[in-house]
Amino acid sequence: MKLNNLIESQQLDVATIFALFHKADELRISVKKPLNGKILATLFYEPSTRTRLSFESAMLRLGGNVISTENAKEFSSAIKGESIQDTTRIVSAYADVIVIRHYEDGAAKKAASVSPIPVINAGDGKGQHPTQALLDLYTIWKEIGHIEDITVAMVGDLKYGRTIRSLCYLLGKFKNIKIIFIAPESLSVNDDIKNYLKKYHIQFEEQTDMNKNLPHIDILYMTRIQKERMTEEEYKNSAGKYRITEENINLLEESARLMHPLPHVEEIELNLETEKTNKRVAYFRQAENGLYIRMALLSYLLE
Amino acid sequence: MKLNNLIESQQLDVATIFALFHKADELRISVKKPLNGKILATLFYEPSTRTRLSFESAMLRLGGNVISTENAKEFSSAIKGESIQDTTRIVSAYADVIVIRHYEDGAAKKAASVSPIPVINAGDGKGQHPTQALLDLYTIWKEIGHIEDITVAMVGDLKYGRTIRSLCYLLGKFKNIKIIFIAPESLSVNDDIKNYLKKYHIQFEEQTDMNKNLPHIDILYMTRIQKERMTEEEYKNSAGKYRITEENINLLEESARLMHPLPHVEEIELNLETEKTNKRVAYFRQAENGLYIRMALLSYLLE
Amino acid sequence: MKLNNLIESQQLDVATIFALFHKADELRISVKKPLNGKILATLFYEPSTRTRLSFESAMLRLGGNVISTENAKEFSSAIKGESIQDTTRIVSAYADVIVIRHYEDGAAKKAASVSPIPVINAGDGKGQHPTQALLDLYTIWKEIGHIEDITVAMVGDLKYGRTIRSLCYLLGKFKNIKIIFIAPESLSVNDDIKNYLKKYHIQFEEQTDMNKNLPHIDILYMTRIQKERMTEEEYKNSAGKYRITEENINLLEESARLMHPLPHVEEIELNLETEKTNKRVAYFRQAENGLYIRMALLSYLLE
Repeated sequence: MKLNNLIESQQLDVATIFALFHKADELRISVKKPLNGKILATLFYEPSTRTRLSFESAMLRLGGNVISTENAKEFSSAIKGESIQDTTRIVSAYADVIVIRHYEDGAAKKAASVSPIPVINAGDGKGQHPTQALLDLYTIWKEIGHIEDITVAMVGDLKYGRTIRSLCYLLGKFKNIKIIFIAPESLSVNDDIKNYLKKYHIQFEEQTDMNKNLPHIDILYMTRIQKERMTEEEYKNSAGKYRITEENINLLEESARLMHPLPHVEEIELNLETEKTNKRVAYFRQAENGLYIRMALLSYLLE
Repeated sequence: MKLNNLIESQQLDVATIFALFHKADELRISVKKPLNGKILATLFYEPSTRTRLSFESAMLRLGGNVISTENAKEFSSAIKGESIQDTTRIVSAYADVIVIRHYEDGAAKKAASVSPIPVINAGDGKGQHPTQALLDLYTIWKEIGHIEDITVAMVGDLKYGRTIRSLCYLLGKFKNIKIIFIAPESLSVNDDIKNYLKKYHIQFEEQTDMNKNLPHIDILYMTRIQKERMTEEEYKNSAGKYRITEENINLLEESARLMHPLPHVEEIELNLETEKTNKRVAYFRQAENGLYIRMALLSYLLE
Repeated sequence: MKLNNLIESQQLDVATIFALFHKADELRISVKKPLNGKILATLFYEPSTRTRLSFESAMLRLGGNVISTENAKEFSSAIKGESIQDTTRIVSAYADVIVIRHYEDGAAKKAASVSPIPVINAGDGKGQHPTQALLDLYTIWKEIGHIEDITVAMVGDLKYGRTIRSLCYLLGKFKNIKIIFIAPESLSVNDDIKNYLKKYHIQFEEQTDMNKNLPHIDILYMTRIQKERMTEEEYKNSAGKYRITEENINLLEESARLMHPLPHVEEIELNLETEKTNKRVAYFRQAENGLYIRMALLSYLLE
């Protein structure tokens, strides 16, 4: 398979996933500049400084250059009313690859449909964020050593979390995965995910108690309760319900890993020393992996 | 003539215009990096992401680098009150060329008056936007093969449109040009333009019907009715009055071209297939030409 | 002494200060690119376009690259609530050096406490702005030829001015300095500065008349009355009280110099000709020195 864009996790087959992982491992230590003279345009319709800086750093480390806006709405303001397709066609004359972030589901696909250059989805609406899923999977592979035959607990806001959705789509491509969804009832995982997992024969359970599961899992994937995406009522019932602290982190096996897409708030309360020395804490390594997997993807799409 | 700045279209003589066009043609296929180590500062007092990205891409493709702000007002906020001249003097220590966009007429000229490095006007107030005019003229030359002996229809908002103004100044330098202004009465072209054209013996007419003129012109230059710059009354009387659709586009000769500075809204309603295959549709090529003409200008000013 | 960060002026000893000055002198004319492939992240929690562009230009001139945000608050918005330490840890994976600007005192120190890469304070709250102090001192050295045995008058807002504070800390490291503080009573210099100067045996006086002191000083360091940081009452009593004009500038000795951190408003009213030809006017050279001293600092921290 040759990718031309990356819009959804489902586009990736297992062979391509591993090609990207091995490329990421190689670029982690490489000093070559394969994208010398190439230009990345970051076209962000809503700010996401973290994701933008990660892509820009990836491009620069590969020897490329960057043109950038977190102000892309200005292209197509209410008054001017330009379509995402027209904007994409214009920007594609200025760059060699576009990374797009948009507030509407499906915006990245629309952009890709007219673009003569590769388009990468960096999150659109409640839809997908496939490079986040890729970096999550890459982290599992680096930390555990393999992806098949593992148990992953996903905890927190499983209803609104875009991360969870894209990661489930990727895990669905591997064998002997077991997923344990742990969430307050009001934030439980949506049917589309459950149907997808059933279709691919991925074993999953829905539970509400976190601590009793900690000793039996390989990956604990915590997520933030996203106050900004839910009702007051939903927030009150769920915030603080699941927390990893100095008390329960060591209920995890020594070989198990705590992941989080970050930023975290009160769902993780560990002191600095633990974050530095307890190998179970993987979330800063996970964030760093985002750089290498994005380097791999840019290099794959442009070389 | 040696240019030190580009503030107004009138600065350009015909020899310089063609020097820039030939340079643009050369840079379109070049792989040299003549501006290696040079720095462009984009100093934008109002956002114009499209123009900014185009200049930044041009600089990067030439091997240069960019420092950038769409927040230049912050330099001289109401409270701090720094003059545009002082800001320019400071920024000129950090860069090798400044591209300025400002909300006030004449701001670019003020900046150039104190700058030890070249200043390019990327639009100031209701004034000029000379690189837009240059890319328009370059597009006419590329698409038609020559600039003399042509008929250009300019349609839409001719009263508020900055693009029209700068393009007329440039066309005034060529022979046997005929301009047909087509606009609702309330948005007809201003006297300063008409007086300029008379002075340079450029033939022009003012009309209100578009379709009957389509078969007899070389260039149809459509513009957007800029709702944000006019009264409610003016907008109501003009929006939707002139439209290019699947019905009337082929009233144009096969060799004629439809141009637009973009973004367009309802004044152009063509389907994707037509935009891709009907050679009359030139506006995306026109946008791309902006990159090459800006590369040519930067290279001309800095080499 | 080997610096790992630059958070406060007090960190710098005299040997390091001169190492930086000599490096700045060298980089002023150098064409080497010692930081090729390195990335600077500007992490600005409040916009400061001037400071940001100066650091970015410095990094690019050294051959490095830049990732940049003036929108860093978005990392840790009220809702998401990420700590400055976590943000720093993540960004440190994307870059080789961080320049931070923050609205809270002590933020830069917090960032440095967890960062595996160098952190430079570009102003935090009412705290310090050490690279401004360095460029001020470098300007004194370039303009006067030496730092010891000089008299410096500091004029204007000495209560709220962050610049004054950092510069006093640096001057405290040199011998035979005399400082004359000239301010309206309500904006006189704070006790912490006075105590610091006493401790290091730096001679200082507090006065209210500027003109009578002009003939007897080496450096006149003017500052802006920062309307935005004071009460209406304080502003009314101080604005316009001290002004340098065509009338009094030549009360300064020919060898004396007028400095200002810029932007200036009504406290300096000189015509363009004077600014260009009167050697006493040093503030644009001072701003340019900011570029070279920041190049020196980046190069010192990263080489």
